[in-house]
Amino acid sequence: MASNTIESSNNEMNWRDYLPFTDWLLNYKRENLTGDVIAGVIVAVMLVPQSMAYALLAGLPPQVGLYASIVPLIIYGLLGTSRSLAVGPVAMVSLLVASGIAALEPATTADYVALAITLAFMVGVIQMLMGLLRIGFLVNFLSHPVLSGFTSAAALVIGFSQLKHLLGFNIPRTEHFHEILVYAGQNITQTNPVVLGIGIVGIVILLFFKFGLSKQLKKSGLSNAIVTPLTKIGPLIIVLFGIIVVSVLGLDASANVSIVGAVPGGLPPITRPLLSLEAIQSLMPIALTIGVVSYMESISVAKSLASKKRQKVDANQELIALGAANLGASVTGGYPVTGGFARSMVNFTAGANTGLASIITAGLITITAIFLTPLFYYLPQAILAAIIVVAVSSLVDVKAFLHAWEYSKSDALSLLVTFFAVLELGIETGILLGAVVSLVLYLWHTSRPHIAIVGRIGESEEYRNVLRHETTTFPHILAIRVDESLYFPNAQYLEQYILEQVADHPDVTKFVLVCSAVNFIDTSALEVLEEIHHRLSENEIEFYMSEVKGPVMDRLEKIGFVEQLGKDHFFLTTHEACETLRQSA
Amino acid sequence: MASNTIESSNNEMNWRDYLPFTDWLLNYKRENLTGDVIAGVIVAVMLVPQSMAYALLAGLPPQVGLYASIVPLIIYGLLGTSRSLAVGPVAMVSLLVASGIAALEPATTADYVALAITLAFMVGVIQMLMGLLRIGFLVNFLSHPVLSGFTSAAALVIGFSQLKHLLGFNIPRTEHFHEILVYAGQNITQTNPVVLGIGIVGIVILLFFKFGLSKQLKKSGLSNAIVTPLTKIGPLIIVLFGIIVVSVLGLDASANVSIVGAVPGGLPPITRPLLSLEAIQSLMPIALTIGVVSYMESISVAKSLASKKRQKVDANQELIALGAANLGASVTGGYPVTGGFARSMVNFTAGANTGLASIITAGLITITAIFLTPLFYYLPQAILAAIIVVAVSSLVDVKAFLHAWEYSKSDALSLLVTFFAVLELGIETGILLGAVVSLVLYLWHTSRPHIAIVGRIGESEEYRNVLRHETTTFPHILAIRVDESLYFPNAQYLEQYILEQVADHPDVTKFVLVCSAVNFIDTSALEVLEEIHHRLSENEIEFYMSEVKGPVMDRLEKIGFVEQLGKDHFFLTTHEACETLRQSA
Repeated sequence: MASNTIESSNNEMNWRDYLPFTDWLLNYKRENLTGDVIAGVIVAVMLVPQSMAYALLAGLPPQVGLYASIVPLIIYGLLGTSRSLAVGPVAMVSLLVASGIAALEPATTADYVALAITLAFMVGVIQMLMGLLRIGFLVNFLSHPVLSGFTSAAALVIGFSQLKHLLGFNIPRTEHFHEILVYAGQNITQTNPVVLGIGIVGIVILLFFKFGLSKQLKKSGLSNAIVTPLTKIGPLIIVLFGIIVVSVLGLDASANVSIVGAVPGGLPPITRPLLSLEAIQSLMPIALTIGVVSYMESISVAKSLASKKRQKVDANQELIALGAANLGASVTGGYPVTGGFARSMVNFTAGANTGLASIITAGLITITAIFLTPLFYYLPQAILAAIIVVAVSSLVDVKAFLHAWEYSKSDALSLLVTFFAVLELGIETGILLGAVVSLVLYLWHTSRPHIAIVGRIGESEEYRNVLRHETTTFPHILAIRVDESLYFPNAQYLEQYILEQVADHPDVTKFVLVCSAVNFIDTSALEVLEEIHHRLSENEIEFYMSEVKGPVMDRLEKIGFVEQLGKDHFFLTTHEACETLRQSA
Repeated sequence: MASNTIESSNNEMNWRDYLPFTDWLLNYKRENLTGDVIAGVIVAVMLVPQSMAYALLAGLPPQVGLYASIVPLIIYGLLGTSRSLAVGPVAMVSLLVASGIAALEPATTADYVALAITLAFMVGVIQMLMGLLRIGFLVNFLSHPVLSGFTSAAALVIGFSQLKHLLGFNIPRTEHFHEILVYAGQNITQTNPVVLGIGIVGIVILLFFKFGLSKQLKKSGLSNAIVTPLTKIGPLIIVLFGIIVVSVLGLDASANVSIVGAVPGGLPPITRPLLSLEAIQSLMPIALTIGVVSYMESISVAKSLASKKRQKVDANQELIALGAANLGASVTGGYPVTGGFARSMVNFTAGANTGLASIITAGLITITAIFLTPLFYYLPQAILAAIIVVAVSSLVDVKAFLHAWEYSKSDALSLLVTFFAVLELGIETGILLGAVVSLVLYLWHTSRPHIAIVGRIGESEEYRNVLRHETTTFPHILAIRVDESLYFPNAQYLEQYILEQVADHPDVTKFVLVCSAVNFIDTSALEVLEEIHHRLSENEIEFYMSEVKGPVMDRLEKIGFVEQLGKDHFFLTTHEACETLRQSA
């Protein structure tokens, strides 16, 4: 089970839980092979152009993308608990790598690559630690609106980072999104029409594969298992198109079309991270961000696919597997990887049954890295840009905002704050600010809980809000219900409310706090309850509590509050309280 | 009423609410005069030595303490809503001033004073803004354990900052508490025995006044209104003792006893803050800390005193009054002030009925500043140190920790983290870290809510935890109750729990989520509910909800979730749900 928290009763992990392949590989079933092979091949076809495109997005040479698609895939295939997650370079993480390393201004490409390798190492260590310490649940503290705002903004940043490749002139790097638009607008006349043309053709073909083809093929009666993979070979098609057009027409020279150029072939190199304190310190914020963001992207895909087949993923083992994959990337010339959404969907739909699919993909990428890199010499940058733009375009999610806006203004606000902060202040600041805003809004929300004076409905035993229902109250009894746990942000509010109500009801001599919705009471609130008791006593008003939940009562008893108030000041039901107090008056 | 939040129905403030003296001063009652005069005099007697001691603690010349005890008191007396709060220099704020300004390393005393004046101005602006924007409630986000940890640690820091004056040799300033102890221990042989003797005599006299005298006087049958003020003249007594001993025996020269020296006399100077961007930027963190900490100290004293007389304080008007008092300090050569605990207690007990008491105190301090400063020439620093040490010693609150430890380990943990962080990392970092830790622990707590599978108790309509009660369940119905609002930190946990339970109960075809303890559902949790619904549908399990609260239901309806699930999938009670589903099966 994916739970890191439910298992408290069963926290012991078997050593085999850490090595999931001992399950599927040692008992490999012949019937899984076809699906695994087909999925492995199709993902490889998709991954070759993608991995190079994302490496360029990260500011790295294209072969680094290929290297990151070999050993990490094998490691994840062996250690991961998802049967269909396809790891490798993804857009979001590549963007984070680019923004994190660019800020350090490395002098040479070799320095840049060394920092990327170090980053993969650090991300690996962070994720493995999170997994071994079983603290993967911490990522749940980023709310959906914050993630949604982040994803939309990051998709825009990624998409517009490709504008220079589509327009054919350089746009300076910036942390502020609007500056890209301003600069592009001011220099729009420098656009290279040939580059733009190639890019647009590429985008149109991709969009056709993505949206149009599927309908066409389905009409012809083909099954999903064939249609979905076919719609994913768009990138391969436009890569071939771009290479042929540019090489045949010599557009790199005649029309100044930027091309990928020489991609060194061969096996991934053996590398090692920079372990200087300085490098680690300066990369730490971005490594933490990548560690968390890449895990979240990966785990949500893995969970969603697993549940479709009623399989289970283990969140902490996923962290360990991703961490190991990143460590693998760091020693074989790669950069940080994670499970990608689109790629994993393809893997799943094409029939991946076990981690063997990933291992087959890795084998094909190895062959590509050794033998096929010369083919990409004439590949235009505009084609890779088209692949990236189309890949991220669906991530800009306006509907999520409208939905949040309709349901909860404060959730919509956290989404917007995160969105604009990521665009204009940078990714880490944006996520952090969004997380803080969502927490503060939540606290603000619970700091002003719904509080109702309750009265008896007719002759029933039900006590409800006097403002909403026809109720009977007794002049010397005041019963109020708080619809929130009592803790520091609302403790003062409660005290003020009660003292004000008591001041407004001069006849009251008995006060009943109805705790049916109080799930816990913290130390601050306990002090406030003691204070309220004290203040009420000074005014000769007795303090009672009703409907206190079992676990809450246990703690109040342990700390002596029950004794302090008097055991007879606690009632199981509000009705019992009011009946008793009415008679005693 | 003190509430800044309750008043949403009554948010309009009358202009007279901003000028409370229009109430008491224009209609001044003759009967209040005696109490006001006596209280004003006694507080002045207490404040003269205190204000100079605290100014020295803040690293300022002693007369700055006197200046801060004149105009700010008059302004607070006119604008404050508390009838008995005594504002002026206090230990905690003085410590914050010292640590904030020392970090900027001003070159001269004049620069130092200029920064203190600027700090008073900024604190004034911050507090006035908080008051006018009605956001005083934000301070409630600091929990009691965090405040308690902070107060204890700050008291230790303040107390030990006086060690050099009591031992008679210099101890270098440090942000790390243990270094003071280490340094003092290593250099203990440098102790000046005469200085130490004066300090110990001072401390013993003060302790006698604080603890012993009160008993003696009460035995003699005197009333509290006389006893309490008498016990507070201890500082004045030891000041006189110190001055006489040092001047008569010439100890400043013969025994190298540090004395206050020449204190310039005269009216407070007219000053103005440094308004350079640089000064404001570098002082901002400490100004925010002082703004919040001083407000919290002040409002808690004010509330506690007001409730004793069934009076009310308005939190936002208090912020405005304190802000104005600090602005007053900044234009009359003072430094940040706030309402002090001990001093306000004395003011209250001595009979202060209106702000006139503060104005009388201010008048007496003015006379002191003009005419009496030469008296303090021979005042030994050790005596001022004794006053400070005894004043803060009662703030170290071990009981609060033991109490928190017994009641809630996580509250005890936030207290400890804050305590040690303030001691070793500095005050602002300490408070911030404490606040973050308490929030994270709270989220962690709510991220693992209590969830129970419920069953019917006997033939009743009550459905309770199957693990705690003898209940009846139905094999194809699974009803679970979540004892927490559903929001982002626990949404994933809930999903995992439900899917696991469903997997463990293969016969189940109807799932009921009991929402009696769910006070709200945020966007993240809503998405998870949709996801759960979707997953359950895939497994041919129907999803129902029961006991959804009114306001929660309203929002689920508005967003279309009720329609999506089907109106007949919502039941008012769990009993109704189970009866209906049992029959439909």
